[in-house]
Amino acid sequence: MSIQSHYQSLMTRARQIEALGQVSGLLGWDQETMMPRKAGAQRAEHFAAVEAARHDRLTDKGLADLIDGIDPASLDLVQRRNVAELRRQHERAARIPLRLAEELARLSSEAQDIWVQARAARDFAMFAPALKRMVALKREEAACLRREGQSHYDALLGDYEPDMPADHLAEMLDRLRPTLVALREGIAASGQKAPAISGSFPADRQIALSREVAGLFGYDFAAGRLDLAVHPFSSGTMGDARITTRIDERDPFGCLLSTIHEVGHAVYEQNIDAAMMFTPVGRHASMGVHESQSRLFENQIGRSRAFCDWLFPRMHDTFGNFGLTGADELYRVLNRVETGFIRTESDEVHYNLHIMLRFGLELDLFEGGLEVDDLESEWNRRFARDFGREVPDAAQGVLQDIHWSGGSFGYFPTYSLGNIYAAALTRCLRRDLPDFDGLVSRGDLSPVIGWLNARIHRPGNLMPPEALMRAATGDAVSEIPLIDYLKAKYTALYAL
Amino acid sequence: MSIQSHYQSLMTRARQIEALGQVSGLLGWDQETMMPRKAGAQRAEHFAAVEAARHDRLTDKGLADLIDGIDPASLDLVQRRNVAELRRQHERAARIPLRLAEELARLSSEAQDIWVQARAARDFAMFAPALKRMVALKREEAACLRREGQSHYDALLGDYEPDMPADHLAEMLDRLRPTLVALREGIAASGQKAPAISGSFPADRQIALSREVAGLFGYDFAAGRLDLAVHPFSSGTMGDARITTRIDERDPFGCLLSTIHEVGHAVYEQNIDAAMMFTPVGRHASMGVHESQSRLFENQIGRSRAFCDWLFPRMHDTFGNFGLTGADELYRVLNRVETGFIRTESDEVHYNLHIMLRFGLELDLFEGGLEVDDLESEWNRRFARDFGREVPDAAQGVLQDIHWSGGSFGYFPTYSLGNIYAAALTRCLRRDLPDFDGLVSRGDLSPVIGWLNARIHRPGNLMPPEALMRAATGDAVSEIPLIDYLKAKYTALYAL
Repeated sequence: MSIQSHYQSLMTRARQIEALGQVSGLLGWDQETMMPRKAGAQRAEHFAAVEAARHDRLTDKGLADLIDGIDPASLDLVQRRNVAELRRQHERAARIPLRLAEELARLSSEAQDIWVQARAARDFAMFAPALKRMVALKREEAACLRREGQSHYDALLGDYEPDMPADHLAEMLDRLRPTLVALREGIAASGQKAPAISGSFPADRQIALSREVAGLFGYDFAAGRLDLAVHPFSSGTMGDARITTRIDERDPFGCLLSTIHEVGHAVYEQNIDAAMMFTPVGRHASMGVHESQSRLFENQIGRSRAFCDWLFPRMHDTFGNFGLTGADELYRVLNRVETGFIRTESDEVHYNLHIMLRFGLELDLFEGGLEVDDLESEWNRRFARDFGREVPDAAQGVLQDIHWSGGSFGYFPTYSLGNIYAAALTRCLRRDLPDFDGLVSRGDLSPVIGWLNARIHRPGNLMPPEALMRAATGDAVSEIPLIDYLKAKYTALYAL
Repeated sequence: MSIQSHYQSLMTRARQIEALGQVSGLLGWDQETMMPRKAGAQRAEHFAAVEAARHDRLTDKGLADLIDGIDPASLDLVQRRNVAELRRQHERAARIPLRLAEELARLSSEAQDIWVQARAARDFAMFAPALKRMVALKREEAACLRREGQSHYDALLGDYEPDMPADHLAEMLDRLRPTLVALREGIAASGQKAPAISGSFPADRQIALSREVAGLFGYDFAAGRLDLAVHPFSSGTMGDARITTRIDERDPFGCLLSTIHEVGHAVYEQNIDAAMMFTPVGRHASMGVHESQSRLFENQIGRSRAFCDWLFPRMHDTFGNFGLTGADELYRVLNRVETGFIRTESDEVHYNLHIMLRFGLELDLFEGGLEVDDLESEWNRRFARDFGREVPDAAQGVLQDIHWSGGSFGYFPTYSLGNIYAAALTRCLRRDLPDFDGLVSRGDLSPVIGWLNARIHRPGNLMPPEALMRAATGDAVSEIPLIDYLKAKYTALYAL
């Protein structure tokens, strides 16, 4: 077999593996947007069957032989990365028994249904048995995955952010915390309140505005669609990158900012180089990088003073008078800082504190002996300590997020990493596009999107996340741009 | 291994195989209802990967050994049928090379996209290359599948209707044809025209009425959903049986009757005994039986004089005055007999003539040397011969149906078989429920649905279709009840 046909055999196998992964993604999208209520038991079997097939493909002896038999020296750089990534996927899967892979896939689907019900009932005890099974399976998985000397938690985190140890992340977050606390206290002491909105915000107009804004941020509706979900998310890649949003008819900003956030994810996926479709490099680089795109769109652009120049008249056209006098007031509303219970509704000052709470609990679940039975009380105790308020019920506390029901332990900290990356990228964007604010205020986002396309989107997984970020920003990852950004923004806004 | 654990190992494998089949079904539903335009290439790979996984599972040596090693004498009747059906599926798959299975799955998805475009352009030449590849693959598949002495076409037909040779079907249809032609000519000679509708039929009201009617016919929306599709279809089973319909704002009957038709399919799937979920007996018995349920709902009930008593006031409430004076006129409109070009819009007199046209062309494609290059001209020639009208363009002729783009050769004749089964079932229903018309006119369909649940739906695939129909009707399959039904209905309606 020639080296090229050897390589093509590997890529044919990679294509099937990647396609099955995309099928699982579609099953998940359908479950959260379209699936009828009574389909839960069947859907869990669908996930298990697809995951078992994917696991079989990944652990196949023939694949291992092909990987072992190829000489990387005969390959070009992209091919070498593809083979290395396929090897990594193979080795990861080979550490997980098929039974565990199937059980995790099935339980992720089942537990999500239970979580939905428990959250509606505001009853953690309803969810606890499923979560206990999940934590047990994830502990088992972490024990299988961890390399010599690696912690269990790092083994899980590595699925979302390769080569980013929890220690390193924790250090950055620890250095970030004092800024957040100081800003929160300063803002509270300032006694300033954001103006109140009024008026009516019918669902169809919110959707129409969301669609317009999605297009403005570069979302291609011919390669995606917008639906409603309780917990907005994005799903899919390249020609099929779908987004969801949520609607509250008393407040249009949840819908709008959720849409902008998910568009950030989807525009990333839609713009990965299509020539790499169904190969290991034809994917996002990491969840931290993914989140940097959604956060940059949502916060650095969507919540900026410049964007309010564009947004205010559009909102006025859409909803009529909604109680605000202009872009300045809109900017204040979009950046209202308040100590609330819900992560997804929180402002930029509180957001990372919410993440730190979850990150700490996850570390203790996997490294510190914390058990599910104590999770709710521990959540409430730490929330009171860190946020100074008592959690009123589980739906506003430990049950608020979908992640743990799907087994996504190690995912939360990538949100904060995304904020760190986003601030670093925006600093460079402002340097390379000196009229950044002017462009944003005119709604001319194409130069911004083009900059991100070239540096972050198109390369996909050609490089590890740290190398990608270094290539894009010229710098090592650091929390300093985020600290500088938050200080500058909120000090000015609240005249601290 | 005990006999029961041996059997359970088989059923565990059957569960995965059935689950992967359901996943393919969901991919198909999504492709026709939700999928964005640019996702076609990816979706074809999804189908290929899932079908390859299913094929691998079915042809697995371990499965063959388990099947060969079990002693049917130690099993109960249901278990024996499960093993026999799994063996049949295994042997079928083992005859198909993996490459062919994958290519068929990929092409079915790709060709459907091409068909949509070609139909929109009314250009058969756009579709012909894909159809040629499809016919070549299906000929190859038929050659793999056919048993000693079996025709190629019967091998394909057997996938939809086990143990029903094309010869036998053709004989029944040949005996049916003179009745249809005589009715058509008599009706044309009568010079009677159905009254014309007027008024406006907004999409949202059509959907609201469709949802009400779906519920009336027993559709469980918690185990399904209703969406729009160009070519209405139903998809899925048990807890997740979805339907689609289409809307024409000038004519509400297409939406209404499509909904009733698809509800017939879906109520069948929703009511298969859930205890048999993911086992070979936990499926529909055949496509002919499937179609009998949709046809019975659509024609024997939906187009009956009795149902017009229920429907007329409901339509009046929904749309206001729509030009008809009452149930008698509505009955005439629902049973307007006209020689049109489109199968799915045709009346009960013409419908089976449309099927005979396609059945004849399919037989000639697989047995008679007909080639795709001549298919359009042959379609047009035969249509003029059988229907007395010239086909104006390919969209109203050879391009009108989705089936061939998906490789479903052998499927069409099961529609006529469904009509034959439906008439036989309705004869028994009227015998067992003497107040049948009274129930229908009051919209009290539960006794009818209960009768079908017990005899057709719940048993699923516990028996071959012929045995199922014999058990339900006490008779061998025959076209006579259909002939009697059509003669009685149309002779009275048109005073022939």
